[in-house]
Amino acid sequence: MRSHYCGTLRKEHIDQEVTLCGWVDRRRDHGGVIFLDLRDRDGIVQVVFDPDTEEHFQRADKVRSEFVLQVKGRVRARTESTVNPNMATGEIEVLGKELEILNSSETPPFQLDTHTDVGEDVRLRYRFLDLRRNDIADKLRLRSRITSILRNYLDSNGFLDIETPILTRATPEGARDYLVPSRTHAGKFFALPQSPQLFKQLLMVAGMDRYYQIAKCFRDEDLRADRQPEFTQIDLETSFMDQDEIMAITEGMIRELFQQVLNVDLGDLPRMSYAEAMLRFGSDRPDLRIPLELTDVEDLMQQVDFKVFNGPANDPKGRVAALKVPGGAKLSRKEIDEYTKFVGIYGAKGLAWIKVNELAKGVEGLQSPILKFMPDDIVMQMMERLAVADGDIIFFGADKTSVVNEALGALRVKLGEDLNMIEREWAPLWVVDFPMFEEIDGGWTSLHHPFTAPTCSPEELEANPGAALSKAYDLVLNGTELGGGSIRIHKSDMQQAVFRILGIGPEEADEKFGFLLDALKYGCPPHGGLAFGLDRIVMLMTGAKSIRDVIAFPKTQTAACLMTDAPGVVESKQLTELNIRLRKTEEKQG
Amino acid sequence: MRSHYCGTLRKEHIDQEVTLCGWVDRRRDHGGVIFLDLRDRDGIVQVVFDPDTEEHFQRADKVRSEFVLQVKGRVRARTESTVNPNMATGEIEVLGKELEILNSSETPPFQLDTHTDVGEDVRLRYRFLDLRRNDIADKLRLRSRITSILRNYLDSNGFLDIETPILTRATPEGARDYLVPSRTHAGKFFALPQSPQLFKQLLMVAGMDRYYQIAKCFRDEDLRADRQPEFTQIDLETSFMDQDEIMAITEGMIRELFQQVLNVDLGDLPRMSYAEAMLRFGSDRPDLRIPLELTDVEDLMQQVDFKVFNGPANDPKGRVAALKVPGGAKLSRKEIDEYTKFVGIYGAKGLAWIKVNELAKGVEGLQSPILKFMPDDIVMQMMERLAVADGDIIFFGADKTSVVNEALGALRVKLGEDLNMIEREWAPLWVVDFPMFEEIDGGWTSLHHPFTAPTCSPEELEANPGAALSKAYDLVLNGTELGGGSIRIHKSDMQQAVFRILGIGPEEADEKFGFLLDALKYGCPPHGGLAFGLDRIVMLMTGAKSIRDVIAFPKTQTAACLMTDAPGVVESKQLTELNIRLRKTEEKQG
Repeated sequence: MRSHYCGTLRKEHIDQEVTLCGWVDRRRDHGGVIFLDLRDRDGIVQVVFDPDTEEHFQRADKVRSEFVLQVKGRVRARTESTVNPNMATGEIEVLGKELEILNSSETPPFQLDTHTDVGEDVRLRYRFLDLRRNDIADKLRLRSRITSILRNYLDSNGFLDIETPILTRATPEGARDYLVPSRTHAGKFFALPQSPQLFKQLLMVAGMDRYYQIAKCFRDEDLRADRQPEFTQIDLETSFMDQDEIMAITEGMIRELFQQVLNVDLGDLPRMSYAEAMLRFGSDRPDLRIPLELTDVEDLMQQVDFKVFNGPANDPKGRVAALKVPGGAKLSRKEIDEYTKFVGIYGAKGLAWIKVNELAKGVEGLQSPILKFMPDDIVMQMMERLAVADGDIIFFGADKTSVVNEALGALRVKLGEDLNMIEREWAPLWVVDFPMFEEIDGGWTSLHHPFTAPTCSPEELEANPGAALSKAYDLVLNGTELGGGSIRIHKSDMQQAVFRILGIGPEEADEKFGFLLDALKYGCPPHGGLAFGLDRIVMLMTGAKSIRDVIAFPKTQTAACLMTDAPGVVESKQLTELNIRLRKTEEKQG
Repeated sequence: MRSHYCGTLRKEHIDQEVTLCGWVDRRRDHGGVIFLDLRDRDGIVQVVFDPDTEEHFQRADKVRSEFVLQVKGRVRARTESTVNPNMATGEIEVLGKELEILNSSETPPFQLDTHTDVGEDVRLRYRFLDLRRNDIADKLRLRSRITSILRNYLDSNGFLDIETPILTRATPEGARDYLVPSRTHAGKFFALPQSPQLFKQLLMVAGMDRYYQIAKCFRDEDLRADRQPEFTQIDLETSFMDQDEIMAITEGMIRELFQQVLNVDLGDLPRMSYAEAMLRFGSDRPDLRIPLELTDVEDLMQQVDFKVFNGPANDPKGRVAALKVPGGAKLSRKEIDEYTKFVGIYGAKGLAWIKVNELAKGVEGLQSPILKFMPDDIVMQMMERLAVADGDIIFFGADKTSVVNEALGALRVKLGEDLNMIEREWAPLWVVDFPMFEEIDGGWTSLHHPFTAPTCSPEELEANPGAALSKAYDLVLNGTELGGGSIRIHKSDMQQAVFRILGIGPEEADEKFGFLLDALKYGCPPHGGLAFGLDRIVMLMTGAKSIRDVIAFPKTQTAACLMTDAPGVVESKQLTELNIRLRKTEEKQG
């Protein structure tokens, strides 16, 4: 039906007869001629109809925005004054000879040809129109390309693409499962997978050696801005590879991706321990584009007669840290109040600060409501440790360690963005040496998942769970966790030790993971793997503001599809077949 | 952890030091030395430990089947008498120097190294062991390769890989949906897609131009041998291409696949109309490997005074057809009785036959219980039409057309197989020119789906729905439908005409497909597409007997996973959150 895509026509096509198909992006009358901007997947070209081709001119006169046309014509150079350097096809135009209207269009509910600001609800309701906008369409095109590059890399590295089930058993990720009632097994339910974790481990037990899958995963959670009920992982697992080898092969994949798509060389990715990341950046996914760091000052604050500081400083679970912001002394009282509110989101009860106006004057040259609570020599020791200069501001966090880290970690990123301190476009790193467990309400919880291998023996692990490190690794880019993984436990005794520490009794373990424990008995190889969030990678690489912009048919924050009106009401006959019924409204209200 | 895969070692590696990882496939003592067959994904190699390496020899002595080992050693030639030509690595062996036991194994519940016949239940329960068997593992490896070839073909032809939702609204395929209760929208349900049909059409409306996806699809049906609750489609859709172009590009894909994987040139695929396929083979997916055809004889039977034949012959909805089987006169009475039972499955009330013993003798040379009911000249006219020869048998079908087609169509295939008449390995073809509708219980039903475009105008369609042909096309291979598709309706008036014929009122249409009807209003391009069943393609190409053999973790015929024990019981708290409850057992029994 066509000889060329609209967007591909260039000077070298001049004098060629072409057949094009596409949508009317814009239609103008000018000097007795009709100009149609014809749009297809590859771009836009200008088509001109003059009254010489009477029948077709008259048709061209009738077309409106978003009509679908087939146009035959001849490519010709534009006159010098009408060349449009902002258009890829701007040096040429097509002199239309024949025009067929393949379909008409009503006036769309919102403009597509400009960056008109439309409410997201309308955009999602008419997603099939929203996707015609170049900025969204480009993102989906790039997503397809990213997927293809990733697959080719994994294919050529011997990974097998293996599908794992969608209708499966509840997985142990800990989020809420989507459930699917079984018709043939009354009263029982499938769960949609939160990840293919157990299946990929079983594929290693099965000797598949290297597995990957671009896998749909599901979590029924209350959605934050960057979450969707269904999301996509690049999921991989290998046998007989140690942590360094797995990190190297996946690092190679990400490097290749950035090279091919963005022509960016990420270089060798630095590695940082979890402990160092928390200490210096208050986060296990530090944004290294921002040249700000936390500095511990609790040793200095232990003696100070100021409860806000000396309390946390003397608490083994507390932390007192300072964040120096060069040039920050210019922040107004009002701006500081805003940042105080901001750290409040993370549980900080206040935000102490010191401005360095003129260091040469000693404490006199500093400005802060808290100076009066601290001896001058402590203050000056701190200034020395922080290597301050005139014009700096120092913010303080003093609280439970987790509160200080979260609050100052977030403040660091916010200040970096607000004060335009971002130094480079891409700052990837590996975070390693995670703790195996964290203590929550007096019990131990896995920091990753219960199949992550520790660096020590089962005996050492049980002797001191809090000290144990895991063979886990996260890949962080610009403060976003792109993905993570670990070496898995491949021996029964270790897996049982972990279950004991987590308080999962033999019965529960057998009930939940019996098949995995079975599998460990029959020659499970050493193995490990990783999963990347594809949506997030695409989001970062396309500069999208929302994950919804890189998904063809996303759901809203209440997990609904405005276009198809899903979820929907179903017939009671269907529920009967599934052996379920709706709860009565009264019960819910009661 | 290793330098080579076991199965890759050859003569050129002789004298190299290698490190291997894998499973003990077999362990033998022989003449004071220990032979270990070490297996990994790529194959098996023989490793020899002799008592010189005392510590490692002793370890080798302890290993059992399915232990996981790391072995260091030197590749050496086997002596001439011990070369094993049946093994890819059979010219060499590895003289083991170091052995590390990476994991032990209990005795597996079934033998893995032989083709021991194990019940499928046990195999599915221990799928992680079953997958270690080479014949199953090979199929999954080939599946991965097939997927990769298909993707590369589609990528290089400008198709974009776009994911469509799994949590969606009921699709109109007509089978039973799997439902997912919504937590945030009480009383409402998502459906898992039976296919991405509507989404891919909307992607065309969105201007994506060429879409593909290797898509999971779901149908909650009572399972036949070759069905699974979740299955995989190669799903594609294009804009601005006519039927011939779409068939050409997908035919190219299948041809490329067979060329690359099996080194088979399928050549140009023949095309056959639905009408011809039904007439000659009684099936719209004829197995052309079998050189048997149906021949209509109803004109001859209209006058015959034999009710079994002249009834259907005079019924416009009846058919009388003959199936000539060369060499079939040797079939015994007992065998014929079996075939009579066989056609009974398809509703045939009997199976008349004539054996041609000695044609030169005329009717005297024929043998059949039905000859007495037919005039000799009619019989001989029929013999002439069928061009019979001595030794042939002719079977007859006389009934409603659909019964005759199904019964003789199936009999044709069965006889072809039983009598070893299969002429070639691969017989692909396109079936085209399907009817738009079939009449069921006095109403019209779409033969494909309600979005399939007819070859005529809306007016002609409504004037005579029964005569209308569609722009649908199925690709058939060896009697199996690999996939099919159609040009879709892209204009509102046509879509509404089809809905009217199907008895779908405006309200129901709006309720079910409102968003599609909306989309047709805003410049929907001419488009069409196709979906192939990936599982079936892999099954045919690997010669698998069951679809379960080409799926890593399949479900049983009652839609259960014996390994993970899914579906499972869930906590009542979860159901409460989902606003549903189980039906009481009494209610079900009541």
